[in-house]
Amino acid sequence: MTTIKDSVHDHIELDGVAEALLDTAPVQRLRHVKQLGTVTLVYPSANHTRFEHSLGVYYLADQALSHLGIEGQQAERVRAAAILHDVGHSPYSHNIEELVYRETGLYHDDVDELLGTGDVARVLSEHGLNPDSVAGLVAGEGELGQLVSGELDVDRMDYLVRDAHHTGVPYGTIDHERLVRELRFVDGDLVLDEGNVQTAESLLLARALMNPTVYQHHVARIAKSMLRRATERLLAETRTDASELRRWDDSDLLVALRDCQATAELAGRLSRRTLYKRSVWAEMDAVPDPLLESDHERVRSLEREVADAANVDPEHVVLDVPDEPSMTESTSRVVVNGQVRPLAEQSTLVSALRAAQHDQWRLGVYAPPDVADRVGDAAIRVLGLELDGARVRDVRPGIHATLDEFN
Amino acid sequence: MTTIKDSVHDHIELDGVAEALLDTAPVQRLRHVKQLGTVTLVYPSANHTRFEHSLGVYYLADQALSHLGIEGQQAERVRAAAILHDVGHSPYSHNIEELVYRETGLYHDDVDELLGTGDVARVLSEHGLNPDSVAGLVAGEGELGQLVSGELDVDRMDYLVRDAHHTGVPYGTIDHERLVRELRFVDGDLVLDEGNVQTAESLLLARALMNPTVYQHHVARIAKSMLRRATERLLAETRTDASELRRWDDSDLLVALRDCQATAELAGRLSRRTLYKRSVWAEMDAVPDPLLESDHERVRSLEREVADAANVDPEHVVLDVPDEPSMTESTSRVVVNGQVRPLAEQSTLVSALRAAQHDQWRLGVYAPPDVADRVGDAAIRVLGLELDGARVRDVRPGIHATLDEFN
Amino acid sequence: MTTIKDSVHDHIELDGVAEALLDTAPVQRLRHVKQLGTVTLVYPSANHTRFEHSLGVYYLADQALSHLGIEGQQAERVRAAAILHDVGHSPYSHNIEELVYRETGLYHDDVDELLGTGDVARVLSEHGLNPDSVAGLVAGEGELGQLVSGELDVDRMDYLVRDAHHTGVPYGTIDHERLVRELRFVDGDLVLDEGNVQTAESLLLARALMNPTVYQHHVARIAKSMLRRATERLLAETRTDASELRRWDDSDLLVALRDCQATAELAGRLSRRTLYKRSVWAEMDAVPDPLLESDHERVRSLEREVADAANVDPEHVVLDVPDEPSMTESTSRVVVNGQVRPLAEQSTLVSALRAAQHDQWRLGVYAPPDVADRVGDAAIRVLGLELDGARVRDVRPGIHATLDEFN
Amino acid sequence: MTTIKDSVHDHIELDGVAEALLDTAPVQRLRHVKQLGTVTLVYPSANHTRFEHSLGVYYLADQALSHLGIEGQQAERVRAAAILHDVGHSPYSHNIEELVYRETGLYHDDVDELLGTGDVARVLSEHGLNPDSVAGLVAGEGELGQLVSGELDVDRMDYLVRDAHHTGVPYGTIDHERLVRELRFVDGDLVLDEGNVQTAESLLLARALMNPTVYQHHVARIAKSMLRRATERLLAETRTDASELRRWDDSDLLVALRDCQATAELAGRLSRRTLYKRSVWAEMDAVPDPLLESDHERVRSLEREVADAANVDPEHVVLDVPDEPSMTESTSRVVVNGQVRPLAEQSTLVSALRAAQHDQWRLGVYAPPDVADRVGDAAIRVLGLELDGARVRDVRPGIHATLDEFN
Repeated sequence: MTTIKDSVHDHIELDGVAEALLDTAPVQRLRHVKQLGTVTLVYPSANHTRFEHSLGVYYLADQALSHLGIEGQQAERVRAAAILHDVGHSPYSHNIEELVYRETGLYHDDVDELLGTGDVARVLSEHGLNPDSVAGLVAGEGELGQLVSGELDVDRMDYLVRDAHHTGVPYGTIDHERLVRELRFVDGDLVLDEGNVQTAESLLLARALMNPTVYQHHVARIAKSMLRRATERLLAETRTDASELRRWDDSDLLVALRDCQATAELAGRLSRRTLYKRSVWAEMDAVPDPLLESDHERVRSLEREVADAANVDPEHVVLDVPDEPSMTESTSRVVVNGQVRPLAEQSTLVSALRAAQHDQWRLGVYAPPDVADRVGDAAIRVLGLELDGARVRDVRPGIHATLDEFN
Repeated sequence: MTTIKDSVHDHIELDGVAEALLDTAPVQRLRHVKQLGTVTLVYPSANHTRFEHSLGVYYLADQALSHLGIEGQQAERVRAAAILHDVGHSPYSHNIEELVYRETGLYHDDVDELLGTGDVARVLSEHGLNPDSVAGLVAGEGELGQLVSGELDVDRMDYLVRDAHHTGVPYGTIDHERLVRELRFVDGDLVLDEGNVQTAESLLLARALMNPTVYQHHVARIAKSMLRRATERLLAETRTDASELRRWDDSDLLVALRDCQATAELAGRLSRRTLYKRSVWAEMDAVPDPLLESDHERVRSLEREVADAANVDPEHVVLDVPDEPSMTESTSRVVVNGQVRPLAEQSTLVSALRAAQHDQWRLGVYAPPDVADRVGDAAIRVLGLELDGARVRDVRPGIHATLDEFN
Repeated sequence: MTTIKDSVHDHIELDGVAEALLDTAPVQRLRHVKQLGTVTLVYPSANHTRFEHSLGVYYLADQALSHLGIEGQQAERVRAAAILHDVGHSPYSHNIEELVYRETGLYHDDVDELLGTGDVARVLSEHGLNPDSVAGLVAGEGELGQLVSGELDVDRMDYLVRDAHHTGVPYGTIDHERLVRELRFVDGDLVLDEGNVQTAESLLLARALMNPTVYQHHVARIAKSMLRRATERLLAETRTDASELRRWDDSDLLVALRDCQATAELAGRLSRRTLYKRSVWAEMDAVPDPLLESDHERVRSLEREVADAANVDPEHVVLDVPDEPSMTESTSRVVVNGQVRPLAEQSTLVSALRAAQHDQWRLGVYAPPDVADRVGDAAIRVLGLELDGARVRDVRPGIHATLDEFN
Repeated sequence: MTTIKDSVHDHIELDGVAEALLDTAPVQRLRHVKQLGTVTLVYPSANHTRFEHSLGVYYLADQALSHLGIEGQQAERVRAAAILHDVGHSPYSHNIEELVYRETGLYHDDVDELLGTGDVARVLSEHGLNPDSVAGLVAGEGELGQLVSGELDVDRMDYLVRDAHHTGVPYGTIDHERLVRELRFVDGDLVLDEGNVQTAESLLLARALMNPTVYQHHVARIAKSMLRRATERLLAETRTDASELRRWDDSDLLVALRDCQATAELAGRLSRRTLYKRSVWAEMDAVPDPLLESDHERVRSLEREVADAANVDPEHVVLDVPDEPSMTESTSRVVVNGQVRPLAEQSTLVSALRAAQHDQWRLGVYAPPDVADRVGDAAIRVLGLELDGARVRDVRPGIHATLDEFN
């Protein structure tokens, strides 16, 4: 048995397949992939990695299995999926996930191939586990897949408390012990047992507060957009392909960006934190509908149009159109008076949070500080934004401004 | 200067009037008044007192004054009010506040007389402060009174983090440093500065989650009702009057209840935690309107009717009809795009939380375990409750059931 | 099963005999006995009780049993002893333990009678346990008794972390999870497994730092001496006997002291924290040997002599001669290269800490502030102290002065 | 003013020269230099960087200056030195510091050149500060230099609590607020004020416990030795010179090692954590005196001899002879009865800890697992170690074995 000291869950014990998987290259690689990518540019203490998070997810999965009374090979499969659930992440985690998906068709939880080859496949097979079925759990398939990837999965329980610990933002400090204890399977659905409407709400609220303060902080979004832009150039200018890129770690990507002439400026800006600024920051109502549905090609083309109109280098305009907000946890289920019900039916908060997320949504246009105003004026015209004069305005500014000056 | 080590804020420094007030009997008395009264019967670690809370409120007030740039006598007055803000509490804090009010006309923040006499008056006067004006601040009067008692006061900031620390329930863990830093006065109103809609929401949410889990936990409510009932008997059966009672501490009351024959049984039940059980637990829609507006006399009379109908000792029926929920924080104000606006206008969460509080409201009827069912049946008939058969039922049970078995 | 939320160990689960014992009067009584007695007058947040500590000891015992692979009735017996280990405490815990011992011959861990009668005896018997054998474990008898009371017992692991949590003094923050995991039985001795010399040292060091800063802080010692003096008077002046006193809780004693004319002044001083001051504070080398061995009668007689010489009321002189320091943890054993060895042989720190404890020892004479100097001069003469002029002097003052002004 | 959220000190405010320095490249570079280098291979949560540590040192320096009443340019100079104190670190912090020193003659606190050029020099000069005098403070020169680098510097206060927070090992949790409050200057010496012998001891003890458990953990030492060996090869095989290397960050070095054919194997081992094992682990008494004084060349030559004797590739033998233990904090000074005295005179613990450090010292020989035994046998012969048969033996194993299996 291996015992590891973790700053969040204290001692974590691993044996069986989880212990054996720990020493495989795909899992060890996660030591060099930061959990929150560019968020560290807002919260300097947030340098935790997917490796320690994977240990935490394994730990909570193991606790949940024990409370649920699930044992044997079924449980080993879940533990394997927990320790492996993030091996499919690209460098900088979600930051360049869309880009990798466009090029490879793979999201971070598409891990069939990764699990079916090399050391991981060997270890799984030595422990009598089928790589495909473990990959299925990682993708959230089947009853037990809900524990690994679903609206009540232990993944989100770990990342909320871990991100709170490392950023210093307390909003993510949920009662994860209680959540893990109250999980039940009812007719194949993973639900929270009687008496936990509020426990479910607390999970929802934690993410609702962490989202704008941490995950979607505008400085993290700007840096992420710059990183994405630089990585696109890297793929275009060098022989690196996206499949290879997907297996790099943060160091590989950062150094490659520094070494490539076409991306050195952006890499330098990211390394020294001399970031672009917001030229435009627009709520959803100010954005024409067709713009919301632009695909990547359309966005690139609009960026060039804005650059033309502003008379700046096309590399100096980044248009950031996030997806419409989703809220996975809102579909979680709770037992109420003996019946399983969707949380959204039980809780007035769910629809309020959905509305809040809509209100928090922002389109961003970013540019170097010296041309930010010029780009902003051009972007408003080219994109047809209705901003009543103010380029960067918030009707609801709590969203972006936890630490005004630093960020 | 006096330096005190606090488990929540670490080192707290006191000088001037606050240091001098610390050694007065009314402030030292708070060492023997628990912050959360009967809540310790649910969360055994919650034995913190009004004394340490008062130190915490003083600390946060001092920080806020410094960030707001308020100095001199004005600031001393606020610091005095902070350290004194809870001296008007009866034993067991809010648990018997209504009873004391009925008898004396005084709530815990009516402290004119307490501040105008004895050591406290002397100390205030030695530091050039007028007891009436300090009492005014405690009651939330005037511009600076908002810091001590208002929707953004430092009182609630301290109690949320302190109660979280001592109960172990993390929901109260707000970002109090940020809150204190973002306070501003605009046209005489205490508001949160630009960029803090979400900070304001987090305060609201923390209390919304702590309320049912901690402050209104049904076991704490049952014990509180028993304590109130016993204290009423004590006043009726002995020469103790309510003004005297108000100046007791928890020990005085507990021992008096044990020593009085009429209250010894209830005192024993509270000491040994052999509490009454819920005979009825009914949501608001099941309760006839007139019952909601019953005054104390009417409640007492209904209890006797229920006891009659159930054929039990009238002392064995307690009817607990809470006030309709309020939500002070919802009127807090934030600066948005340069204008002060009520949070309720900016945040979709406010009305959702108000609805949630309405949903969480419960009428309770409590009785000893051996007659609980009988009392429940009688109560439903006598009170005209519409409960469809189930005496204790929750359409939203997250409310009362953080720790099912223990509580 | 009962689940309880604890501020130190989070969720604690009880079932079997421990769950049943929880609801007995002797265990519930511990809710009203503070863990650290008068230490709360130095550290205002330190209001935690023997009840929550007993839950913590139960929790750690249960974890230790699980790691040691001990099951069945043997384990149940240890769990019962853990939850019951402090029921023999007098009010204010150790503060008046010597006094109670002089009168009753019983220390806090003499619990044969308490366990052999009433609800506790009934519950133990219902679970097939012999009260005597459980009482034996509480007294540290037998192999398993070492877990409950011994140099590596879970009692001290819980109190160190719990006292750190509640005082805010971090020195007690040991790695209790590691300690519990590394316990082993070798030839009937409870030892720490290979690789834990340092783990054992850390336990020793934690107590060595907590001792002067918290447990033996001079203000706590003064208040304790005053409480002891008052309680002696109470026994002398009223019909209360020591056996009865031993079963009181803190509230009972505090109110009794307030109500008794002879002790009302001291009770008032303790309640309002208007304490005696140090008239003398003398290191061991300044104290004549015979004085060190004075029994209670001799101490009382010396107090009267000092009072006479100083011409003050005998009640206004308190002489406090602590026992010579012991260091239980120093006899703990560790496995080193496969052999069990005493820690003192392995660790150069043990003898250094023993010397430090000797250096920290202080004799105290306390008196009301207005006569403190006069009493000090008299005490030096009467007791034959060699203090070179300074009545209160420390060659090693770190001992008493964590928070100078407050204390 | 810039406000930054830190996971250890919460909100940190920067203005003046510190705020301006924050955005310079040498300070931002520290975001990519881990605080503890290879220790993250033992404690996976320990990914914190020199950047956040520098913010923490700045914060504590600012607090100390305020308590000491130091203001104006003097204070600005200290704040500048605090934020800059680690800019001289090579990648992986101390891990390759000796190597860089051999090649460049510069230790991490030799920052004259770094501060005298580029943005840093410009910012310092704009704020009226002389780069040389700031560099002097970083090197611990002068009265105020003691605050930045000395036995009571704020550097060690920050790293102890920060390393505890991120590793999860509680031993470093000192009372840093108290330490900062008790600093005084007496005759030009930075000392702890009256009543702090124990406070000084606690600092000493914290480091004494963190040293073997964290900083000198054998797995971290093995990995560090491998990293050093690989970096030496890199310098030998490529055009990289040590001055350039010194300005790299962790990513630059890691990727360079991966890309260089001669170091790819070691880089892969470090990335995948397939480390060498201990062939020999010998206490000081087993090591011949001359070996203790070997310089780098001699060590390299002995490695080759051992490799020859064991018939393995010379790259597969690493000899690790640490310096004799020092104990900076032992020279700290405290005020005792009005006089400044060295802690070592006041505290019996100091010499005990010095002896303990001597006991904990170990010479290591490391090799790939498959040849570890063979190399061990050869090393014993070649180096003349007196090990009585056991190659890896600890008379005091607490030293290296916090988490046996993982490490």
